[in-house]
Amino acid sequence: MSTPQRSEKLTLASFDTRTLPGHRLEVPAESALRLDCGVDLGPFAIAYQTYGTLNADKSNAVMVCHALTGDQFVATPHPFTGKPGWWEHMIGPGLVLDTDRYFVICTNVLGGCMGSSGPREINPATGKRWGLSFPVITIADMVRAQARVLDHYGIDQLFCVIGGSMGGMQVLQWAALYPERVFSAVPIATAARHSAQNIAFHEVGRQAIMADPEWTGGAYAEHGIRPHRGLAVARMAAHITYLSEVALHRKFGRSLQDRQQISFGFDADFQVESYLRHQGSTFVDRFDANSYLYITRACDYFDLAAEHGGVLANAFRGTRTRFCIVSFTSDWLYPTSENRMIMHALNAVAANVSFVEIETDKGHDAFLLEEPEFFATLRGFLAGAAEHRGLKR
Amino acid sequence: MSTPQRSEKLTLASFDTRTLPGHRLEVPAESALRLDCGVDLGPFAIAYQTYGTLNADKSNAVMVCHALTGDQFVATPHPFTGKPGWWEHMIGPGLVLDTDRYFVICTNVLGGCMGSSGPREINPATGKRWGLSFPVITIADMVRAQARVLDHYGIDQLFCVIGGSMGGMQVLQWAALYPERVFSAVPIATAARHSAQNIAFHEVGRQAIMADPEWTGGAYAEHGIRPHRGLAVARMAAHITYLSEVALHRKFGRSLQDRQQISFGFDADFQVESYLRHQGSTFVDRFDANSYLYITRACDYFDLAAEHGGVLANAFRGTRTRFCIVSFTSDWLYPTSENRMIMHALNAVAANVSFVEIETDKGHDAFLLEEPEFFATLRGFLAGAAEHRGLKR
Repeated sequence: MSTPQRSEKLTLASFDTRTLPGHRLEVPAESALRLDCGVDLGPFAIAYQTYGTLNADKSNAVMVCHALTGDQFVATPHPFTGKPGWWEHMIGPGLVLDTDRYFVICTNVLGGCMGSSGPREINPATGKRWGLSFPVITIADMVRAQARVLDHYGIDQLFCVIGGSMGGMQVLQWAALYPERVFSAVPIATAARHSAQNIAFHEVGRQAIMADPEWTGGAYAEHGIRPHRGLAVARMAAHITYLSEVALHRKFGRSLQDRQQISFGFDADFQVESYLRHQGSTFVDRFDANSYLYITRACDYFDLAAEHGGVLANAFRGTRTRFCIVSFTSDWLYPTSENRMIMHALNAVAANVSFVEIETDKGHDAFLLEEPEFFATLRGFLAGAAEHRGLKR
Repeated sequence: MSTPQRSEKLTLASFDTRTLPGHRLEVPAESALRLDCGVDLGPFAIAYQTYGTLNADKSNAVMVCHALTGDQFVATPHPFTGKPGWWEHMIGPGLVLDTDRYFVICTNVLGGCMGSSGPREINPATGKRWGLSFPVITIADMVRAQARVLDHYGIDQLFCVIGGSMGGMQVLQWAALYPERVFSAVPIATAARHSAQNIAFHEVGRQAIMADPEWTGGAYAEHGIRPHRGLAVARMAAHITYLSEVALHRKFGRSLQDRQQISFGFDADFQVESYLRHQGSTFVDRFDANSYLYITRACDYFDLAAEHGGVLANAFRGTRTRFCIVSFTSDWLYPTSENRMIMHALNAVAANVSFVEIETDKGHDAFLLEEPEFFATLRGFLAGAAEHRGLKR
């Protein structure tokens, strides 16, 4: 594990993993991780950030799980973009995840492109980038890799595991794989299995990437190029699904971009076009195309019921974890109905579960925003759980 | 006007407009069409199909307007794919649009790629393909071009103008531009203006096409290539929006394609992936990428209220046209709320309007399918309108 300091402006194409700010757990070959696909992965690395201090009995650790295109910089400015951490308003002294009280860990997922082992990294066995030779991973593989970070700290049980979207899938997988290691769990705006529509949207993104000639079968890094156009299109398509129609209408409507009249051309006449193009073009500066393939695939493969004989409740039988499920009314990517299925499964095994649907028109992205009712819900749940856990204020 | 016969298998890349089955109206330069962008387009051509017989007083003509990727082969096998016409179950003897009673016309829209003037065709002034030098057209331009076909037949008034999706926009534009020429109008699953979300989805498609290096700034035909990969991705993204989540779930769920287990790779493991890939790859055999740009742009520009001082009702003030608006409950591309806005505008000017929301889980595509309640609605409306028009059975 090393803790290097940020030196100069980093870019995705050029950075060396060891120059990234934050921590890095290097797992040796003899502790290889058996992946769902059957491959033993090792050595491998997990890059992560921590906030706050682990208490003496190691009972105050919170694992934050990031979404598809998130990373470990949850409450730290992003080393490439300089933008605030993606949950900066959630994590810090006195905030919902109070770093005066909790020890917060956020790892870059296995398969990611911000320092954890993934297709962007060097395969130690060959000295070349993994590319498509990196094994296809699952949400469970991500979680097993995160558990190695707990082992590293000697943390037997997380006080809480929390995350939205793909982060919520990891939360559910944590609770299913390691029930004794999860005191409380907060899956947000997620699903216990990826729907056909969501697989379809992911497949569009993958096809956009793979259609870009610069993808070169995943070996672009070898050639010093990147499929930035395909990746931008993938991001644009995905981004629409993160917003609600109402939010798009309120934010942009049919307003024109820097002009009084339509141009009768193919420039970005409308603000919504300009916005989407910007989303696409900035994304490619911080994300790796092959990682996008791997991580979307992991989401598509996720099906917690299928792993448990087709009965979702079996994933949680006997659990003592306290659950708080949160959904958002205008989220059409992971709608309330998907979240409610999780609640029904937990009810079926008499688990301790609360379920809150937050009224908002901000769509799936609401989980990344300061929604007062959302934050109040989390505060209330965490306060109760901390009391039961005997955590000091 | 010529009526050539189908000879051998045609393909989009190679066909000459004059080898297409059906009719073709060639408008000479002296009758140029003044487009909304200010350009005078002429000479130009409109390719179309007809079904049934025009009656003596020319009162039984029905204009069918096709959607984004439709064409004039509404009840005729497609010359490239050999598939049945896209409304074949709607048009014919004894069917909803009864060809024993009505004279049905369906034109390929201006800007299209099935014989009407558009970026795929030869610019007579240069002898080269138009490509991006073709003027950007609007829904109103499409309708004005269709009106030339009526002029050609000496038809003063259509008995009915009918269409779904972009076809519905043309219906509304017909009623607004030529109120005296439209006895009845049936806009289906449409909107009086394109929403921010719909513009966004179109922009993703356009970016996918323009990101393909083989698009070559729209000049691909000059180079004997085609941006088939970008166009396929555009089609895949759009296709998801035509279906409902429920329909995708029922049709595919998480079923695997020709395998018992996931492959831990990037092949099409899931049926929904395989289906989407098929949609993309077959589409490029029958559609032109530049036409896709132009026609999506025309949809995005469509805003009937904006053309009438910001008040949609003004578009229909004084209308004597009889309207029947149809929407589908699970259509999230042109939801009932958008269709209801049209009804409200028509109500505000005391127009003769009926509005029917059809219960279905088949999404936007329902307008192309044999939905019994949908068909019954159309039959009932047309029967009443025909009686008022004094059309013989």
